[in-house]
Amino acid sequence: MKTTRKQTLGVCYYPEHWPQERWTDDARMMAEAGITHVRIGEFAWSRLEPDPGRTDFEWLDRAFETLHANGLNVVLGTPTATPPKWLVDSMPDMLAVGRDGKTRGFGSRRHYCFSHQGYRRECARIVTLLAKRYGRHPALAAWQTDNEYGCHDTVESYSAAALSGFRDWLGQKYQSPDALNRAWGNVFWSMEYRSFEEVELPNLAVTEVNPAHAMDFQRYSSDQVIAFNRIQTEIIREHSPEIPIAHNFMGRFVAFDHYDVSADLDIASWDAYPIGFLDRDTKDEDNKQRYLGVGDPDNQALHHDLYRACGQVRNGEADGRWWVMEQQPGPVNWAPWNPAPSPGAVRLWAWEAFAAGAEVVSYFRWRQPSFAQEQMHEALLLPDGEPNEAYSVCKQVAGELDAIGAVADPARSDVALVFDYESAWAWAIQPQGRDFDYFDLVLRFYRALRQHGVSVDVVPPSGEAVTGRKLVIVPGLFSAPGEVLEALADSDAAILLGPRTGSKNDDFRIAEGLPPGPFRKLIDMKIRRVESLPPFVDVPLAEGGRFNGWREFVMPGEGVKAVRMSKDGYAAHLTNGRIHYLAGRPDEETAKAVVGELLRQAGVEALDLHRDIRVRDNGGVRYVFNYGPDSVDVSGIAGEGEILFGETVLAPRAVLAFRRR
Amino acid sequence: MKTTRKQTLGVCYYPEHWPQERWTDDARMMAEAGITHVRIGEFAWSRLEPDPGRTDFEWLDRAFETLHANGLNVVLGTPTATPPKWLVDSMPDMLAVGRDGKTRGFGSRRHYCFSHQGYRRECARIVTLLAKRYGRHPALAAWQTDNEYGCHDTVESYSAAALSGFRDWLGQKYQSPDALNRAWGNVFWSMEYRSFEEVELPNLAVTEVNPAHAMDFQRYSSDQVIAFNRIQTEIIREHSPEIPIAHNFMGRFVAFDHYDVSADLDIASWDAYPIGFLDRDTKDEDNKQRYLGVGDPDNQALHHDLYRACGQVRNGEADGRWWVMEQQPGPVNWAPWNPAPSPGAVRLWAWEAFAAGAEVVSYFRWRQPSFAQEQMHEALLLPDGEPNEAYSVCKQVAGELDAIGAVADPARSDVALVFDYESAWAWAIQPQGRDFDYFDLVLRFYRALRQHGVSVDVVPPSGEAVTGRKLVIVPGLFSAPGEVLEALADSDAAILLGPRTGSKNDDFRIAEGLPPGPFRKLIDMKIRRVESLPPFVDVPLAEGGRFNGWREFVMPGEGVKAVRMSKDGYAAHLTNGRIHYLAGRPDEETAKAVVGELLRQAGVEALDLHRDIRVRDNGGVRYVFNYGPDSVDVSGIAGEGEILFGETVLAPRAVLAFRRR
Amino acid sequence: MKTTRKQTLGVCYYPEHWPQERWTDDARMMAEAGITHVRIGEFAWSRLEPDPGRTDFEWLDRAFETLHANGLNVVLGTPTATPPKWLVDSMPDMLAVGRDGKTRGFGSRRHYCFSHQGYRRECARIVTLLAKRYGRHPALAAWQTDNEYGCHDTVESYSAAALSGFRDWLGQKYQSPDALNRAWGNVFWSMEYRSFEEVELPNLAVTEVNPAHAMDFQRYSSDQVIAFNRIQTEIIREHSPEIPIAHNFMGRFVAFDHYDVSADLDIASWDAYPIGFLDRDTKDEDNKQRYLGVGDPDNQALHHDLYRACGQVRNGEADGRWWVMEQQPGPVNWAPWNPAPSPGAVRLWAWEAFAAGAEVVSYFRWRQPSFAQEQMHEALLLPDGEPNEAYSVCKQVAGELDAIGAVADPARSDVALVFDYESAWAWAIQPQGRDFDYFDLVLRFYRALRQHGVSVDVVPPSGEAVTGRKLVIVPGLFSAPGEVLEALADSDAAILLGPRTGSKNDDFRIAEGLPPGPFRKLIDMKIRRVESLPPFVDVPLAEGGRFNGWREFVMPGEGVKAVRMSKDGYAAHLTNGRIHYLAGRPDEETAKAVVGELLRQAGVEALDLHRDIRVRDNGGVRYVFNYGPDSVDVSGIAGEGEILFGETVLAPRAVLAFRRR
Ligand SMILES: [Zn+2]
Ligand SMILES: [Zn+2]
Ligand SMILES: [Zn+2]
Repeated sequence: MKTTRKQTLGVCYYPEHWPQERWTDDARMMAEAGITHVRIGEFAWSRLEPDPGRTDFEWLDRAFETLHANGLNVVLGTPTATPPKWLVDSMPDMLAVGRDGKTRGFGSRRHYCFSHQGYRRECARIVTLLAKRYGRHPALAAWQTDNEYGCHDTVESYSAAALSGFRDWLGQKYQSPDALNRAWGNVFWSMEYRSFEEVELPNLAVTEVNPAHAMDFQRYSSDQVIAFNRIQTEIIREHSPEIPIAHNFMGRFVAFDHYDVSADLDIASWDAYPIGFLDRDTKDEDNKQRYLGVGDPDNQALHHDLYRACGQVRNGEADGRWWVMEQQPGPVNWAPWNPAPSPGAVRLWAWEAFAAGAEVVSYFRWRQPSFAQEQMHEALLLPDGEPNEAYSVCKQVAGELDAIGAVADPARSDVALVFDYESAWAWAIQPQGRDFDYFDLVLRFYRALRQHGVSVDVVPPSGEAVTGRKLVIVPGLFSAPGEVLEALADSDAAILLGPRTGSKNDDFRIAEGLPPGPFRKLIDMKIRRVESLPPFVDVPLAEGGRFNGWREFVMPGEGVKAVRMSKDGYAAHLTNGRIHYLAGRPDEETAKAVVGELLRQAGVEALDLHRDIRVRDNGGVRYVFNYGPDSVDVSGIAGEGEILFGETVLAPRAVLAFRRR
Repeated sequence: MKTTRKQTLGVCYYPEHWPQERWTDDARMMAEAGITHVRIGEFAWSRLEPDPGRTDFEWLDRAFETLHANGLNVVLGTPTATPPKWLVDSMPDMLAVGRDGKTRGFGSRRHYCFSHQGYRRECARIVTLLAKRYGRHPALAAWQTDNEYGCHDTVESYSAAALSGFRDWLGQKYQSPDALNRAWGNVFWSMEYRSFEEVELPNLAVTEVNPAHAMDFQRYSSDQVIAFNRIQTEIIREHSPEIPIAHNFMGRFVAFDHYDVSADLDIASWDAYPIGFLDRDTKDEDNKQRYLGVGDPDNQALHHDLYRACGQVRNGEADGRWWVMEQQPGPVNWAPWNPAPSPGAVRLWAWEAFAAGAEVVSYFRWRQPSFAQEQMHEALLLPDGEPNEAYSVCKQVAGELDAIGAVADPARSDVALVFDYESAWAWAIQPQGRDFDYFDLVLRFYRALRQHGVSVDVVPPSGEAVTGRKLVIVPGLFSAPGEVLEALADSDAAILLGPRTGSKNDDFRIAEGLPPGPFRKLIDMKIRRVESLPPFVDVPLAEGGRFNGWREFVMPGEGVKAVRMSKDGYAAHLTNGRIHYLAGRPDEETAKAVVGELLRQAGVEALDLHRDIRVRDNGGVRYVFNYGPDSVDVSGIAGEGEILFGETVLAPRAVLAFRRR
Repeated sequence: MKTTRKQTLGVCYYPEHWPQERWTDDARMMAEAGITHVRIGEFAWSRLEPDPGRTDFEWLDRAFETLHANGLNVVLGTPTATPPKWLVDSMPDMLAVGRDGKTRGFGSRRHYCFSHQGYRRECARIVTLLAKRYGRHPALAAWQTDNEYGCHDTVESYSAAALSGFRDWLGQKYQSPDALNRAWGNVFWSMEYRSFEEVELPNLAVTEVNPAHAMDFQRYSSDQVIAFNRIQTEIIREHSPEIPIAHNFMGRFVAFDHYDVSADLDIASWDAYPIGFLDRDTKDEDNKQRYLGVGDPDNQALHHDLYRACGQVRNGEADGRWWVMEQQPGPVNWAPWNPAPSPGAVRLWAWEAFAAGAEVVSYFRWRQPSFAQEQMHEALLLPDGEPNEAYSVCKQVAGELDAIGAVADPARSDVALVFDYESAWAWAIQPQGRDFDYFDLVLRFYRALRQHGVSVDVVPPSGEAVTGRKLVIVPGLFSAPGEVLEALADSDAAILLGPRTGSKNDDFRIAEGLPPGPFRKLIDMKIRRVESLPPFVDVPLAEGGRFNGWREFVMPGEGVKAVRMSKDGYAAHLTNGRIHYLAGRPDEETAKAVVGELLRQAGVEALDLHRDIRVRDNGGVRYVFNYGPDSVDVSGIAGEGEILFGETVLAPRAVLAFRRR
């Protein structure tokens, strides 16, 4: 039985930055804007423990009281992303060390090494104090562990603590140095070790290290994030058993396995800043102008779907929860350039998240500080405490949520798109072509699905996740767990593999019997060669469209035929009927065409959308978004539906919601 | 009563590089070329003190004699920019440390940390020896302290000496760690300190440090340059009381406060290499070709005006002195590419400096060395000792100076353009848009003034400097001293502010009551938002022209109206009549139009110049320069004036001088 | 009496990577493909000596046996490029230190400092063991010392061992610190040393070091490679006196003097990967697409000619030997992008090498590994052990070699092009214009010669090498040995000098009496000025063509006149009849025109080739290559020759061979 929850708004608040006299006004204004959830505390260690062992919780008690008195729910962050200077000075080797061998010092945030046991103990201590004191507070709605694990490239640390931890981890994984040597192929270049104590971290070598070495270090580093987080969640569950636990993940960030961390969370959340990454999301120069103030039409959506999947890891699809913990309200301070959101964009972003089943969309932040690093980061209030643009947007969205009685109720999609963290690591370690990027590859297929108006489930590579679909797309999957393979073999879904899918085994070796390795049980073919191509050379396809930067040369087996060919005569898209393999990185035209054919084959309803229009379903409601600069008539999409809000001639960056019949 | 001085030529000479037998010929040839001033000694420490404590002044005595005998005046440089190896080896911690944490070693020059007390004592020692020996020599015309403070990024050092000095400096400034925490806003991200000993230098942190932290370190670093220089000037003034002291500043260099260093100098000078920086000075691709051999038409001129202001800090407008200590005579060796000056350019540069009131223009250097780092740097003589091109240019200019009886006599301009070093630091620390550069911003307004034929005073942000003007332009001023505000309020000048002017307070916090902060007393408006934009997006204005890369969103108050609007409907240029605010970074067209309107409003005479033509007044003489590749008829400018030299159809890179009636 | 040797194919093989059961099949398949030479062992130290002092040669014995049994010749590599971890841990200071001061650690290959005496002893030990065991084995055809000296920028090391070695080296060269100071011109910037112990390595200084300092360090570093290699060759010659010694050099690699290393080698070989460097070889954007799958038409050829010269250093022209030790068989793994060779390209490369007189062309590698760093590097066999494309190419070429009875028999060319390693160092140390690159400069003249269908000798700057030619081209020669000058003076060849030729002396000082220094004895002229120009400005010549990025201003003397002028009126190409000087860097049009005129003047037969066609003679056979994407009719070239293979309408990437009459 599925739990549906009311959709609502939140905000990130730093009471310690402002005089206590102001707090009541703040709380009142929040409530007036329709905000129900307030995240606090996540950077306040120096105020909670000004001197070693001398704690001060009074101010936080009062913050809880003030918010509670105004009917607001509290999300309490643990302050472990910002250990105070006295703590760092007490054990300087807790600092992380960069890939360049330099210690990453105090002066900003995230100055710690995940591997450091001493710092882990300090974190357990402060979290225990917080969990005991606030764990059963009536205003407490959720916990947030730490803040943005890995931000500023902090997952990997090349410290002494990491080196010793890594050697232990390898010892447990391989049991003998010979096993490690065999797995990694260390006979190559005489890299063989005689003991685990001989292994070094994979930085500062003369040239590239063994990719298997790099891969295991990435796995180790990811495991440290999981262990670090679990220390906190275990303490919280002991002292605050009723309260769900969240962490706020980030956009386009893959340095640890988010599914694994999510196994210890009740709520997956992420921090959505749509504008800052446009350069990386969009290849098309024209789009960089077109979407400057609203962000790539598909990138936010992909993250919503990905973190919805993360939110279901611990408690399953029925009880999965996901939030946007930080939502951009105006220009930020950290991108190379920081444009203002286009009129309408801030509201569009909220609805895009709610349409994807978000339970809470929480703005970052309540009031723009006049000091320190983020003083140029806009907020709901101006630095002088007066409402800024986004304050009224917030109010409007809150009213709309109320009016339509919005609940988080995303349907399971017929289409699953596999997203895998190990694959992201693998192709970063060994791209083979400089611009081969796993996230970008997945986004190409995701974009094509969105362009056909399909609501997608982004899923981990698990048997359960791919089961019961009509279409499963598996691009660039590094190495396939057996259960996925079985599930795909047992299903009658249309399946699209490639490029690079199944090309390696877990030890970062070329798959047995040539790629696509185990997937050859699904489709009889071998990849004999791959080539990567610079940006100024493409592979035109006879059927239209192109491959960019990557293609594979295939030896097809029994019953496999090419349905697309390169103009120079190589099989580009192969199929045996149910299973398809795409032997290159598709450009937008090709991705759209291939995905369209697969949707038809799978019997999934598809739309033919205007380039700026996107569609998304939540519960019985369909939402239509216009990301473009021009009004677009979408009455064909709305059809006979009961319009909840919006116009069928959809203004730039406007939203239309209607109840489907 | 204003002191006017004869304008004359100089040269930089390294007698220690050449056999003594050659010196007499050199001196004779200098005199023959009309050179009167010869700078020597500034890199000669290893020859003055070959071993610790063992000095050798004989050769320098003889150099003085030889020059004196030929009627030449000596400018003596202190050799502290090049401590010898034995000195460095005696205290290796005197070396500076780079931002990357690496010690910056011996092997070139400027290998010292300004904060190091031991090195300061060594400098005092050698300067005392020099000042005592040569301080009253009849040939001595001026001193130069050190050489190009800060060249090769040497102002900031991240050494142990700097750390300890910085902590003391903070202690003196803030008196208590809590005061520092409050000023910087260290509650943000738990960056609070419990003692000054906890503060680190602002490098090697995980991500950006608090901008207030970075700003105070820049102030500290600037103060060390001042202190370092003052040790030398105090010794010199004691032992050589009659002789003026100079330092040679650089182009486009802002890492310390040049006004403050100038408070200890009688002469401000700078090293003018017009060609090397064209890439940075000119955004227009076409101009990069057009001015390849002559340099940006406004960049040198801006520096002349800036260093003229520096030269007036100690002794006032009436007794201010400024020189070009090093003037490029041909291709140099240090830019990425090193083109030859266009025919005429070397002469044009000299006259542009004299027209701006320079007292001495001194060529770098006398003879091209055949060895070491600068062997590809052209000089007045070839490496073989024969005259090179610039030698005859030098002779020609000397003759012209004589012929017209040129004296340094710059008039006070009706137009002041404020240039401020703290602002340069602030916007480098927190550009908010990657290409926001303070120097470039000031240059845009300066260029517009030059394009209208106006001779400008570039001035510090002081009450006195802005008083008595008809037009004051204040772009991007970080934080406004009260006296400036009062002076502007009391004046009846037209005033142009913005963008970013008054947006912070001294503690690097957003100005109280929103930007433009204290300037809101002059014009009633608030900036509620800024946005930075990538190079491929502009903000077109309804009235023509564009903002590039930066704009602000304004809430105008009582009596303030927009005289320019962006095409998307936001106020771009606001005014209450006398005070104007420009809410974006103007392109060339906009800057020229706005400045033109303001000049008209202020009643300042303006010209409509050809794109390659510039005009400058010194004393009663008007100089007209043609920076372009084509001849231009400038008879309209010359009018009825008495022509001193040049033609009214001005050849490429030619100069016309006429006495105004 | 000239030794001619049969031309044949080889392959690089790593038996230690594969089960011994497979070896026999491998050997059989090699023999079937026509392969005769098999390189083994060069990375196998950890297998030869798994623990300190505990050796295991059994597997290598068996590998020898297996290959021998199949009639294959062995090339045995010494394993010193990959010292095992235990060895590194026993003396960690054997690791090299990068220019950035960071130790370059274990984890890949080439982790050693050439200067380290302890590591040299370890190398002597392992090489002695190998030389004694295999030095007289009947299968042994050649030795290879180490592998790719200098790969991954490993020639220069900034370690303690290097510092102490460098100081000794300077002591031996200069005998007194004063002599060093005078030679380097250390009076400049007070860089004078009082003892050799004061000299530092030329890294980590504040700004650029003295170019003489950098140059001597490069010479020192080159000398360490020579010394390191010689230790091995002396041991091998003692224990394996009959067997020739090779080393495998690299493409576009100049960090040590290859002629000097070659003085200890019987065979010069190089590793030819034509595709990876196309970006650096070709300036023309269109060519980057045109030749993507085949590589620059002249770059490989230039290397063949250069290494043919290296192969003649020890044993003279008559007994010189050169090989391609590693030949690319398909996409590689190490370039930014790794395209597949165009159909035909792999065969074309082999024939281009044989046509240049190569004795062996050896493919890298036998079988694509499924593990470690090079798993994406294609080979003759697929990872699964089945033949890949290049296997059949190999077979075909072997058949063709047999059919025509090919022998290595390159004729001495009438045209010599001087290539000098010190010049490459000099212009890298002091380019004066960012893109001035010595290799590129030589390639411009080489390309022009190839475009005229001329087979060229690339030669060192020695008297012997330039003697007996009809045309000698000497571009950018840093400093000229007296014997070269004498040989050129005594010859009646046409000679083309410049730009930059003779501009410095050995001490890295501007040549006495101005450039071209000693060459002024050949042609009476002086360079008074040089300028470097950014890519967007060219120097058009009145006679057509342009100089790019570099030109010189000349004062011509007696009997010297300009035969080319720049459009702005400066002499661009000067001559006194026999001797020519080109005062700028020629674009393709200019280089082709100038070289064409010189060929005519010298009476060397030239062809007018299609842009994609190249021609090469070996013995009595002329080879014609089509590098382009279209078929080209070359019957005019073949004329009446007896066609050995190929068609006169030459398909893309095809080869035509005919016996000349
Ligand atoms: Zn955040
Ligand atoms: Zn200088
Ligand atoms: Zn190789």
